[in-house]
Amino acid sequence: MTDAVPGAEVTLDGLPLREDLRGGTPYGAPQLDVPIRLNTNENPYPPPPELVADVAEAARAEAASLHRYPDRDAVALRADLADYLTVSTRVVLSEANVWAANGSNEILQQILQAFGGPGRSALGFEPSYSMHPIIASGTRTDWVPAPRRADFTLDTERAAETVRERQPDLVFVTSPNNPTGGSIPLAQLRGVLAAAPGIVVVDEAYAEFSSQPSAVELIAEFPAKLIVSRTMSKAFAFAGGRLGYLAAAPAVVDALQLVRLPYHLSRLTQAAARAALRHADATLGSVHKLSAERDRVVEALLGLGFTPVPSDANFVLFGRFADPKAAWQSYLDQGVLIRDPGIEEHLRVSIGTPEENDAFLEASKEIQR
Amino acid sequence: MTDAVPGAEVTLDGLPLREDLRGGTPYGAPQLDVPIRLNTNENPYPPPPELVADVAEAARAEAASLHRYPDRDAVALRADLADYLTVSTRVVLSEANVWAANGSNEILQQILQAFGGPGRSALGFEPSYSMHPIIASGTRTDWVPAPRRADFTLDTERAAETVRERQPDLVFVTSPNNPTGGSIPLAQLRGVLAAAPGIVVVDEAYAEFSSQPSAVELIAEFPAKLIVSRTMSKAFAFAGGRLGYLAAAPAVVDALQLVRLPYHLSRLTQAAARAALRHADATLGSVHKLSAERDRVVEALLGLGFTPVPSDANFVLFGRFADPKAAWQSYLDQGVLIRDPGIEEHLRVSIGTPEENDAFLEASKEIQR
Repeated sequence: MTDAVPGAEVTLDGLPLREDLRGGTPYGAPQLDVPIRLNTNENPYPPPPELVADVAEAARAEAASLHRYPDRDAVALRADLADYLTVSTRVVLSEANVWAANGSNEILQQILQAFGGPGRSALGFEPSYSMHPIIASGTRTDWVPAPRRADFTLDTERAAETVRERQPDLVFVTSPNNPTGGSIPLAQLRGVLAAAPGIVVVDEAYAEFSSQPSAVELIAEFPAKLIVSRTMSKAFAFAGGRLGYLAAAPAVVDALQLVRLPYHLSRLTQAAARAALRHADATLGSVHKLSAERDRVVEALLGLGFTPVPSDANFVLFGRFADPKAAWQSYLDQGVLIRDPGIEEHLRVSIGTPEENDAFLEASKEIQR
Repeated sequence: MTDAVPGAEVTLDGLPLREDLRGGTPYGAPQLDVPIRLNTNENPYPPPPELVADVAEAARAEAASLHRYPDRDAVALRADLADYLTVSTRVVLSEANVWAANGSNEILQQILQAFGGPGRSALGFEPSYSMHPIIASGTRTDWVPAPRRADFTLDTERAAETVRERQPDLVFVTSPNNPTGGSIPLAQLRGVLAAAPGIVVVDEAYAEFSSQPSAVELIAEFPAKLIVSRTMSKAFAFAGGRLGYLAAAPAVVDALQLVRLPYHLSRLTQAAARAALRHADATLGSVHKLSAERDRVVEALLGLGFTPVPSDANFVLFGRFADPKAAWQSYLDQGVLIRDPGIEEHLRVSIGTPEENDAFLEASKEIQR
């Protein structure tokens, strides 16, 4: 089909692409139409009917004004997010502490545009969220990988030492960590924050599933260093709505307003996210169900002879596979899509509904290790 | 209020902001609640009731799947945009030629991430869309300003010469040009394209208002150079929906997929934009009304002794003011919000409804020049 369209004869090599992108492939897990999708850590429970109706109503109300630009500063949404954080972390925040964007990826990109860039560096403890180094590269920030323990936990004393040695402009700490699942107690985070010369981004995409308190509690203590990034994609069951946010000192929000694209959040995004926040209790009601299912899946995997990594999130990293790619394909052949995070001997499974988890566990019995 | 919140004591100067952002202010026209808003070139006609209903219905349908990530490649939306361009430009395009993002600002940012960056340069003919140099700076691309004629038209022979001399990696040509209003015939664009060593972005945000054919016609001729950027914010009356797009050779789309943030376009954005495209005929019906109003406003301004710049868009740059800032404030004092684009002796007014334009013209009688 594309043969007939204008420009079809030109290849990527024929374009003046920047050198470091040559030979690259777009980020992203395969979007395949299979019965059981446990590969992107979505909340498997669809939004309740009241939320669906509320989003539709919000969209109808906004649609009448679609010819007008949205509130560039998304003040009402940020106030709602601040209220949510205030209730869930018991730290009183206002909209001045909160910034929002199209997914936490855009939040992270804005942070790196403001505080990173050429000649600056960002350090992360790998394996972790693979978009951190990709967004660093997209903003031309040098990426400094630092190790975790062999069991994937973070040795925070060693981490603080590494930060003191390397003096990165930014440090990324993911808690709970994706794709490995563990989270970090505040006392240990404090050590990393104290050691950091610049910004520390605590990526709390999976915070609602965590047994540890939120780093939001540390903003008052490290106001010129700490940024806590969050998302509505996971516990909030709002992956399709694309809403990421952060909590930090108000000056951090001022800084990001210098690099954000104007009107980055549409009227529909702002209104739908506010509608979703009004139903937070209903949506987040799934969190303890999912945590219980996670613990059941971990037990069952142990029973089957696998080695699951202890998880504080809605996914489980597990092994060990001599050939993870082949094992991933075997799951897929059985209609179960999980994630190959590129970690030796391991695969990652998102926690789904009990039925989906049963299907995954059933498939696990057939898998070659 | 912010005094009581965590981190309120930290100022922007206390953060490790990158040096070139220090002292900056966020981009954006004031969002003021005044009766007549003619400052951001929105379409003044609200979406028709059928479109509002369709967007609400699309949102309801998508809301049931909000727990799932959107189509990362937005294929259905891109196919619809390709169809729209095929009909309006008579160049047969497929979704392989089209890419979409949250506003054309994000499109331009992705283009600069892929083809610009540190050590590369982008050239534009000023005054033009002020986000071009800002997004260049955000991606650390050197900005090379080149002049227009004193009457704000583009001397394309001189432009081609400048491009040959300066050898920029990217050239921005805005047609119709914002904030001055003129557009460029294809024959003259060809000269600039032939001279360019790299990418030429023709920013056609206001194309639907233009008397000139779209540069989409030149993609087949300059497939490795030409990118035509578009938006649904203006003629399409979809500024609140945030949907920008581009047409180019398929390889350009492949290149942008290497730098786009995954899942950048929400389910609601994709569905609402598709709904808006289904009502394109109704929405774009306002274009000839607005063009006629523009011509009326230009005539009336001439009659009042102003100097309007000939416009092919839905706004008019006009002068001459000894003190444009003071004149802008006088309009505002009369309840009419227009734009001070920072051009000596000039202000810009968006074309509104006949009643809004009358109010603007009435206010113009009171303005000190």
